[in-house]
Amino acid sequence: MPRPAEALLDVINDWGVDRLFTCPGSTEAAVLDALVLREDVELVLTTHEGVAVSMADGLARVTRRPTVAYLHANVGLTNGLSNLGAAQLAYSPVVVLNGIKPSSIQAREGFTTARRMRDLVHQYVKSDWQSLTAQAIPEDVNRAFRTAVTEPAGPVWVALSQDLMESTADVGVPDAAAYRFDSRVRPAPDAVRAAADLLAAAERPVLVAGGELARVGAVDELVSLSERLGAPVLHEDRRGFERPGFPTDHPHFRGQYEVGHPLVRRADLLAFLGARVFNEFEPARVPPLPTGVPVVHSHTDPRHVGMIYGVDAALIGDQRLVLEALSTALSKALPPVPPREVPPAAPAAPRAPSASGGPLQPADVVDVITDSLRGSAIVGDATTAGGILQQRAHQHTGDDYFVSTSGSLGWGMGAALGVAMGMPHRHVAAVLGDGVFQFGLPALWSAARGGLPVTYVVMNNQSYAAVGAALRRYGGEAVARQRYPGVDIAGPRIADVSTAFGVPGRRVDSLADLRECLDAARTVDHPTLVEVMTDPTTFGP
Amino acid sequence: MPRPAEALLDVINDWGVDRLFTCPGSTEAAVLDALVLREDVELVLTTHEGVAVSMADGLARVTRRPTVAYLHANVGLTNGLSNLGAAQLAYSPVVVLNGIKPSSIQAREGFTTARRMRDLVHQYVKSDWQSLTAQAIPEDVNRAFRTAVTEPAGPVWVALSQDLMESTADVGVPDAAAYRFDSRVRPAPDAVRAAADLLAAAERPVLVAGGELARVGAVDELVSLSERLGAPVLHEDRRGFERPGFPTDHPHFRGQYEVGHPLVRRADLLAFLGARVFNEFEPARVPPLPTGVPVVHSHTDPRHVGMIYGVDAALIGDQRLVLEALSTALSKALPPVPPREVPPAAPAAPRAPSASGGPLQPADVVDVITDSLRGSAIVGDATTAGGILQQRAHQHTGDDYFVSTSGSLGWGMGAALGVAMGMPHRHVAAVLGDGVFQFGLPALWSAARGGLPVTYVVMNNQSYAAVGAALRRYGGEAVARQRYPGVDIAGPRIADVSTAFGVPGRRVDSLADLRECLDAARTVDHPTLVEVMTDPTTFGP
Repeated sequence: MPRPAEALLDVINDWGVDRLFTCPGSTEAAVLDALVLREDVELVLTTHEGVAVSMADGLARVTRRPTVAYLHANVGLTNGLSNLGAAQLAYSPVVVLNGIKPSSIQAREGFTTARRMRDLVHQYVKSDWQSLTAQAIPEDVNRAFRTAVTEPAGPVWVALSQDLMESTADVGVPDAAAYRFDSRVRPAPDAVRAAADLLAAAERPVLVAGGELARVGAVDELVSLSERLGAPVLHEDRRGFERPGFPTDHPHFRGQYEVGHPLVRRADLLAFLGARVFNEFEPARVPPLPTGVPVVHSHTDPRHVGMIYGVDAALIGDQRLVLEALSTALSKALPPVPPREVPPAAPAAPRAPSASGGPLQPADVVDVITDSLRGSAIVGDATTAGGILQQRAHQHTGDDYFVSTSGSLGWGMGAALGVAMGMPHRHVAAVLGDGVFQFGLPALWSAARGGLPVTYVVMNNQSYAAVGAALRRYGGEAVARQRYPGVDIAGPRIADVSTAFGVPGRRVDSLADLRECLDAARTVDHPTLVEVMTDPTTFGP
Repeated sequence: MPRPAEALLDVINDWGVDRLFTCPGSTEAAVLDALVLREDVELVLTTHEGVAVSMADGLARVTRRPTVAYLHANVGLTNGLSNLGAAQLAYSPVVVLNGIKPSSIQAREGFTTARRMRDLVHQYVKSDWQSLTAQAIPEDVNRAFRTAVTEPAGPVWVALSQDLMESTADVGVPDAAAYRFDSRVRPAPDAVRAAADLLAAAERPVLVAGGELARVGAVDELVSLSERLGAPVLHEDRRGFERPGFPTDHPHFRGQYEVGHPLVRRADLLAFLGARVFNEFEPARVPPLPTGVPVVHSHTDPRHVGMIYGVDAALIGDQRLVLEALSTALSKALPPVPPREVPPAAPAAPRAPSASGGPLQPADVVDVITDSLRGSAIVGDATTAGGILQQRAHQHTGDDYFVSTSGSLGWGMGAALGVAMGMPHRHVAAVLGDGVFQFGLPALWSAARGGLPVTYVVMNNQSYAAVGAALRRYGGEAVARQRYPGVDIAGPRIADVSTAFGVPGRRVDSLADLRECLDAARTVDHPTLVEVMTDPTTFGP
């Protein structure tokens, strides 16, 4: 029988995991040592725990399988927390193993211990536990995987103290296969019937596709449903959007949900499928749901349904099973549901070309990015340009565009590397803000080390433009004096920082140069970065 | 009467605080707007919350006054936590104000909210609170200052929701002066007498000086006591050391506490004054206290006394008052305490010069650093070279050398800026490891922006040498195969990264070039960085 560290790697491997993302300390010696002889689990070294967690998250998002981040002590955990929040919101089954100091010095409040480690993490995980004996480690880790992948999936945390991990005890390894089962559920028949009745009776239903559809692979089912119903489809509200639940190039696609959208204004039924209703950025200035329009809300996670707004029909369960059940119920409806005609899309407003010669405008830059990177998977982590990017990025599948609703700046720099690991035949780009860049930049080390051909595009407006926009909305002395404290972060030559990290960078200030850089980036077999200078006075919405 | 944001700045200023360290988001619009018209409180913008906290900590350490870090939402708090741990261990009265989302969306689990924010922070602060009304904000913040500075001092946390901060209510401002009082305490007379009796009776007492003496300005009192007693003085154990409690150039100074130290082996009394006993890195291999030798332990914070080892006399209270009381008690002792002769220091072992031509050895580099930077204040944040640095750095006062026992890598990069702000007439250098550098590097932005003449010295061994040392101690497959996973972090050209951030950097690989760089750095009025390449195979202890 193996020792604890070997058994732990056996469990990990039994769950199909072949990488372990970490930024280790001395506490993790046993597992590092056990990795020396393993061919089945690769150590992916990072230089910051935030990168370890976001890489594990990105990989889980595309493979839809569990991943492992191994953190170090209380300091490593706190450094990884904000990106763990991102993994949680994405339902990523990231198993966080946390090396902690030997039991005896925990009690004595020794170096890098915390009396209540679990208070730090419990809000970000489905389960938190500290193994109490060496014998329990394989079982505890196995249970962590089982809990992480059970739907709704999500991160789980297990603390492993150094004394137990270095124990010479032989320990048993559970049979992981016996803990893997299909945990998806379907709504009760009445609930399906009620929702189907509403859909069948509606004359102008609008379907709102949430990122959860993409996570569980239910996008095709929504395409069928929308075609069956002749119903237009919107992506969910911007603040809840994490990935596309419907192809933007489908003839039924009509943009993104907002209460003022013409189709929403004329709708007689709204069906939110795998969507948040809503992830509020601030208290709504206008009610985000039209008055008197029935609402169907479907989500894998019951936590979201009825969280803020009451519903007329609720569907709790796996979104693919939900859509299949709905489809079956609709096919049995009497009288048969007639196909409706989807209202034509509003003609795109001609986009006024920006005056040439001035500083680049974010919208023009986004146009070049989304045009040049058509076919690439894009990870978005740009606070103020994010809205435009989301509207214009090509999203044919649920794996074409990824963002986080966590507000964890810098998440995208590591997540893009995990996404690239999970899609080795696909070009991956990360579109970042310059503020974001400073939060995630140890990811450049991992990019260089891994040689992953990820393209980082940093839109450098030299500003915390979101803060500027907030001050403008606030309308106080900042506006009166045209002085915006806390906004100007000009200075770093981001392309040069990147080059110094081993990721060749180039700064551009024309759209032609940007296009040339992006075209070149797609053909090389290593990471690159392009820093595009944009107008610092465009604060965004 | 002012509105909440103005009142908050009034309270801050009433407590003598003229800087507010922040990395803001939209949630903080009200306070940013209020700052537009203020001349009495300066916004110190940072590009990462870890930097905001460590700057506030560094400034508090040297000014011994409260400072303010204003964090953003749950993401900003988690990003700042590991450095908040450093502030806590240093008893720095950092008042952490935390902008949080409006009350209504907190309940709805909106963007960047957390249901239990306080669980994240309570272990790192003396008090955590969320203001419940706009009217309460000035009072809550005032109370936070009062709690932070009351001895033993430490960080305090107050969450301020956006709706309350943006309220148009007029609010009262408490009279801060009425909340400032001398909170220092002295031990009971019996306790002083018991300790004095032990000291008077001992023939070979050894005094162990802790960083707490430096914090409360009691170093001179220890000098007097050691001279009065004719007792040798050691700095506290390396793992508990945060700043020098005794001048290294005093004739009674005899090095650093360890149980094998010749003076400890012959001692008949050990008096730990303002020291940790002990901050354990791992379970002790040999007992860290000699058997049968009486122990006096004195600390401001009762938490440390008797935490691990029993004591023969305990002195709880302000360390200056404790030393004064001890001195008075000793002067009354009958028979009078005879002055003893301090045993001579062991002759320094001649240091073998390293073979020239090979890679630079950390010890040689540290010799050049400590020699060239004699007179500068040094902030140490180098994991494996830290031990040598601590032994060799010149420490005439309690403000000559600062480290953190928190294990929060990167802390020193921001802390050095705060230290420099607090000592404008002093040259400040930060000595860092290359691993550390990647954790703290947004501090370079603040260094460049602030133009503070801090010198960053990065000892680049291209390794997590502490991990390598741990694997070597572990003595398993890594040693057998001479393969050390998780150690090699070679790659970044750190000097170039720094230059790209606006802090001119230079890479050197000879001691002569290092010396030249350091000499030049002390004469310029802006920050600089020198990256010195050292031997990647020297893993350290």
